[in-house]
Amino acid sequence: MRTIHAYAAKEPGAQFEPFQYQLPDLGEEQVDIKVHYCGICHSDLSMLNNDWGNAQYPLVPGHEIVGEVIAIGTSVKNMKIGDLVGLGWFSESCMHCDQCMGGSHNLCATKEETIVGRHGGFADYVRSHWSWATPLPSGIDMSKAGPLLCGGITVFNPILSSGVKPTDKVGVIGIGGLGHMAVKFLNKWGCEVTAFSSNPTKKEEILKMGAHRVVNSRDLSEMQEINGTLGFILNTTNVTLDWPGYLKILAPKGRLHNVGAVLEPMEIPAFSLIGGDKSLSGSPLGSPALTRKMLEFCIRHEIYPITEEFPLEKVNDAFTHLKNGKARYRIVLKIT
Amino acid sequence: MRTIHAYAAKEPGAQFEPFQYQLPDLGEEQVDIKVHYCGICHSDLSMLNNDWGNAQYPLVPGHEIVGEVIAIGTSVKNMKIGDLVGLGWFSESCMHCDQCMGGSHNLCATKEETIVGRHGGFADYVRSHWSWATPLPSGIDMSKAGPLLCGGITVFNPILSSGVKPTDKVGVIGIGGLGHMAVKFLNKWGCEVTAFSSNPTKKEEILKMGAHRVVNSRDLSEMQEINGTLGFILNTTNVTLDWPGYLKILAPKGRLHNVGAVLEPMEIPAFSLIGGDKSLSGSPLGSPALTRKMLEFCIRHEIYPITEEFPLEKVNDAFTHLKNGKARYRIVLKIT
Repeated sequence: MRTIHAYAAKEPGAQFEPFQYQLPDLGEEQVDIKVHYCGICHSDLSMLNNDWGNAQYPLVPGHEIVGEVIAIGTSVKNMKIGDLVGLGWFSESCMHCDQCMGGSHNLCATKEETIVGRHGGFADYVRSHWSWATPLPSGIDMSKAGPLLCGGITVFNPILSSGVKPTDKVGVIGIGGLGHMAVKFLNKWGCEVTAFSSNPTKKEEILKMGAHRVVNSRDLSEMQEINGTLGFILNTTNVTLDWPGYLKILAPKGRLHNVGAVLEPMEIPAFSLIGGDKSLSGSPLGSPALTRKMLEFCIRHEIYPITEEFPLEKVNDAFTHLKNGKARYRIVLKIT
Repeated sequence: MRTIHAYAAKEPGAQFEPFQYQLPDLGEEQVDIKVHYCGICHSDLSMLNNDWGNAQYPLVPGHEIVGEVIAIGTSVKNMKIGDLVGLGWFSESCMHCDQCMGGSHNLCATKEETIVGRHGGFADYVRSHWSWATPLPSGIDMSKAGPLLCGGITVFNPILSSGVKPTDKVGVIGIGGLGHMAVKFLNKWGCEVTAFSSNPTKKEEILKMGAHRVVNSRDLSEMQEINGTLGFILNTTNVTLDWPGYLKILAPKGRLHNVGAVLEPMEIPAFSLIGGDKSLSGSPLGSPALTRKMLEFCIRHEIYPITEEFPLEKVNDAFTHLKNGKARYRIVLKIT
């Protein structure tokens, strides 16, 4: 048994309050992690408000966790006490289905989600199956690494899995928590990067992140000027956009990939795909193996999110900041 | 100058009548083809009715053409008088843009369509740029080969380009002109083939074509039973279907590919793609290089469409047969 000191919301949309709960004895394949830092993802806000109907209260959010292994089960592989690890949206998978055996643990049908039906990282400790506690490369900046474990791998996954090449011209829609990491990845990938932003005041900052061009997504003529040019566009926003317009911006064989939790159905004219051999796709977080690759890539190229730090005790202030659209570009809670 | 004897509709939905027109002198890169057979594609009916708003009258449809080269321009490559060739939906492309130079002449932005703004194959002769007059392998059955040049390559293209593997479990929606050829291709591809049909009377025939299982697409429980199982589903129909339902039938990383000219926008919930790393895509006919590969594959495996033959003079009867949904499974006009 371990007593956890966390912050929880007692009902949808509520303020966070100190909350204690107990974890049972550690399972054979589990590890306990002392949380050093935890990022705040827009999904934490969606869960707080029960936007997806799957939140349980009291709710302890937090799934962009970095920390230190302080206890390991008897069958844990690849890990010892004192190791630094990261934990994202998933915390367990079956390890034996076709997807797990094929390396796609993120697509396991019975995987566990870190803050769905269990408690997450706004806490001094958090538990995980060893497979999802990703070892962190030495020299990593712990204070900035948390957001890589959800926002980072969510955008890195389709860049790698879709076969984006360094010769490609690519676009990123929405330069927030996820989008700004995507711009950084794609710049180091060797691509020509176009950022789509509806906020012209961010332009200079976005160019510094590594975009080669910023297009004002509210300016129709600016948009139409680049029709037929981009091989890959990554949407990181969660609102309904002009999907046929973005499909027109794709070059032949191009792909519009969506990682944003858009709630309304996307209306896609069949001809907008057929004529140019185009595709629309989506994906969740990447697998543990891809997360390792991403972390290596981040160390090699010194890629980190741009963060703002709040102590865990100020979690309510942090959420107000996020809700007001003020986060530049990812909030991280300092915990222990 | 060459006088062409064709059948044309003078206005949307009209009966076909004998019609003569003159072709100017042959261009340097053009060939004239004496038409032996011409398939009737559902797109010919859509053009007759001006469903897509791009038909011009008098309209001579016909874009599933096989015949014999009877004249060649001075710069024609890879072809001589007397060669047997096929011609499909496209009849010219620029040969120098990125797509043409990359082998994707079918995605050239300035390509010419055989029955849009010019006359097609319901005629004794038809003209084409040499690049789109695909050489036919020796021994091919001319009376059945026409439909391969549009319907065939339209379904073969995504099977090859999407990377469908012989180990995949795949599905085909709609077992008509296109769908029945897709079933034959995928069977010889080595896949486990599921056919989706709303017409239970076709079941035995569909199994003979090479499907391993026929699912009644109007039976919800039959559909839900196979949720999460197919890696690739090809839609060949042009009506609005239960897209979220078919996306659920896909296995993780699966692709729903559409070659049917569905007129209403497809309503796609973002989560139906994100959770399982799925994609929705579409494509037109394949390139000339892929058409050659398809024809080789057809010869190797004796793949032909199941056809019904009408003489050109009975083209109006043939269209009535098609409009009544009686075609089993592709109509071919015998011309010269």
